[in-house]
Amino acid sequence: MHAPLFEAVPNFSEGKDGTKISRITEAVRAIPGVRILSLHSDPDHNRSVLTFAGEEDPVLSGALALAKACATELDLASQSGEHPRMGVLDVLPFVPLEGATMDDAVRLAHKASESLGFLGFPVYLYGSAATNPHRRSLPDIRRGGYEGVASRISDPLWKPDYGPKTLDSHRGVVAVGARPFLVAFNAYLDTDDVEVARVVATRVRESGGGLPAVRALGFGVGGKAQVSMNLTDLEQTPIPVALEAVRSAAADLGASVESTELVGLAPLEAVLQAARYYLGLRELEADHVLESRLYGRSDPRRL
Amino acid sequence: MHAPLFEAVPNFSEGKDGTKISRITEAVRAIPGVRILSLHSDPDHNRSVLTFAGEEDPVLSGALALAKACATELDLASQSGEHPRMGVLDVLPFVPLEGATMDDAVRLAHKASESLGFLGFPVYLYGSAATNPHRRSLPDIRRGGYEGVASRISDPLWKPDYGPKTLDSHRGVVAVGARPFLVAFNAYLDTDDVEVARVVATRVRESGGGLPAVRALGFGVGGKAQVSMNLTDLEQTPIPVALEAVRSAAADLGASVESTELVGLAPLEAVLQAARYYLGLRELEADHVLESRLYGRSDPRRL
Repeated sequence: MHAPLFEAVPNFSEGKDGTKISRITEAVRAIPGVRILSLHSDPDHNRSVLTFAGEEDPVLSGALALAKACATELDLASQSGEHPRMGVLDVLPFVPLEGATMDDAVRLAHKASESLGFLGFPVYLYGSAATNPHRRSLPDIRRGGYEGVASRISDPLWKPDYGPKTLDSHRGVVAVGARPFLVAFNAYLDTDDVEVARVVATRVRESGGGLPAVRALGFGVGGKAQVSMNLTDLEQTPIPVALEAVRSAAADLGASVESTELVGLAPLEAVLQAARYYLGLRELEADHVLESRLYGRSDPRRL
Repeated sequence: MHAPLFEAVPNFSEGKDGTKISRITEAVRAIPGVRILSLHSDPDHNRSVLTFAGEEDPVLSGALALAKACATELDLASQSGEHPRMGVLDVLPFVPLEGATMDDAVRLAHKASESLGFLGFPVYLYGSAATNPHRRSLPDIRRGGYEGVASRISDPLWKPDYGPKTLDSHRGVVAVGARPFLVAFNAYLDTDDVEVARVVATRVRESGGGLPAVRALGFGVGGKAQVSMNLTDLEQTPIPVALEAVRSAAADLGASVESTELVGLAPLEAVLQAARYYLGLRELEADHVLESRLYGRSDPRRL
């Protein structure tokens, strides 16, 4: 048995200054046992999203090192960008990976929040870690950005879960959460009519009575109608099932799927599901994949 | 840059005696840097197939440790089984994995053969490592088993490539080769008519003018007609292309593919190919797979 793995996906309020971004990410990289998976910096939003993973203790240490570096390097009072930011370390979701449950991620979110509180960050818990239903949704917490939070923080309904109950204009607040692994999967249609993508999105998503654990929106991207999906539970709805629903809904409107794309990372299981589904495989597990056997955490000594 | 990886797939002439099989495989397992991937022992054929992998030096040491253990534990003179065996260590193919070319595997086969020769094993090189076209095919080397080899060994055409030029009745000879990674993929049809599977196999395989790098045979397995395929070069013919050819050939005969199976291991790229093909993905590389990023050999420090 191996220790459960977690992913942290902190969003911090700097997307332009390469030196600062580098100092902040290096603070995480310096923690033994942390594996940096990706970094996306967006200059327009003046915001970066770092993804790192590891066992509980390194991920927790990485998150705290990142928070300290954000407090040192960044100043919300002098920061601007399109994104309605509320803190230098803005959002910090924890995601359960191999061997971890959502409850484990919620516990980790609480543990991190307690330490962030000691470090002087007011913390709102959100997502599966929320202590109150009206704080479950991140947009509700963030409404109005820093100024919105400042106007609400003395309201007992919006008392921070951890840390100071007042705002420091330099560091702001941080929303710490637990959420499932998201697979972002987009389908491009053979039409430039965004309305077709919107209708397809409405039909396939859970909120429209479609597939469970599927969020979908229609956009126009590069002259093509795009159905943009977030799959939040691949056991409930794997990629092939979502895609076939899009293909079918598009066909009803006289359109078809020209190509698709996976944004960011997908777990190996998502790829195995697709291979099983379309190849008609009786069985296909990670154990059948050479690289899993060569590099995986499965103990080869037990063979 | 990482060192190239190789796989060795030795076949040795013991498939019944668990103690002996275990002593032989433990000799390989004891080599640091060797990863045991699988062991299949067949009592009827009285034969075991061990698969292990690693960088060049550990794989070479593992192969030599295995050969010594086979010579110690096994005696061809007192061995019997359905398989036409020719040595205690019967066949030793090397397969290029990540970062390795077929030429690298051929060099490794020669290096291993030289050492096996010093250890007293007469060696025939086969496959891509063959020194002579008439020794390229393993069945040609093995024809008649030990007795066949004994009758040919003094013929200059069949002089061993390395080691003694005479046979020791206890250890016999070993065929050392280099071959591509094989993906074994079977399709089960919705008919019990083996003839349908045979006709489909003939149409899809390279030797029948079908797909390159595909070998195929038709069998009856568990009351179903089975098309059994070996794909020897997934860049030339990936699994989905082979399967669609089988589906199409079967449909021409009024049959269809009910299910499929992958026997043994497949490289991650084979699964990615299937997902790309059927999902219409613009791009899907190992880098998009979470586990590859978590456990792979790619250096996360370079991100």
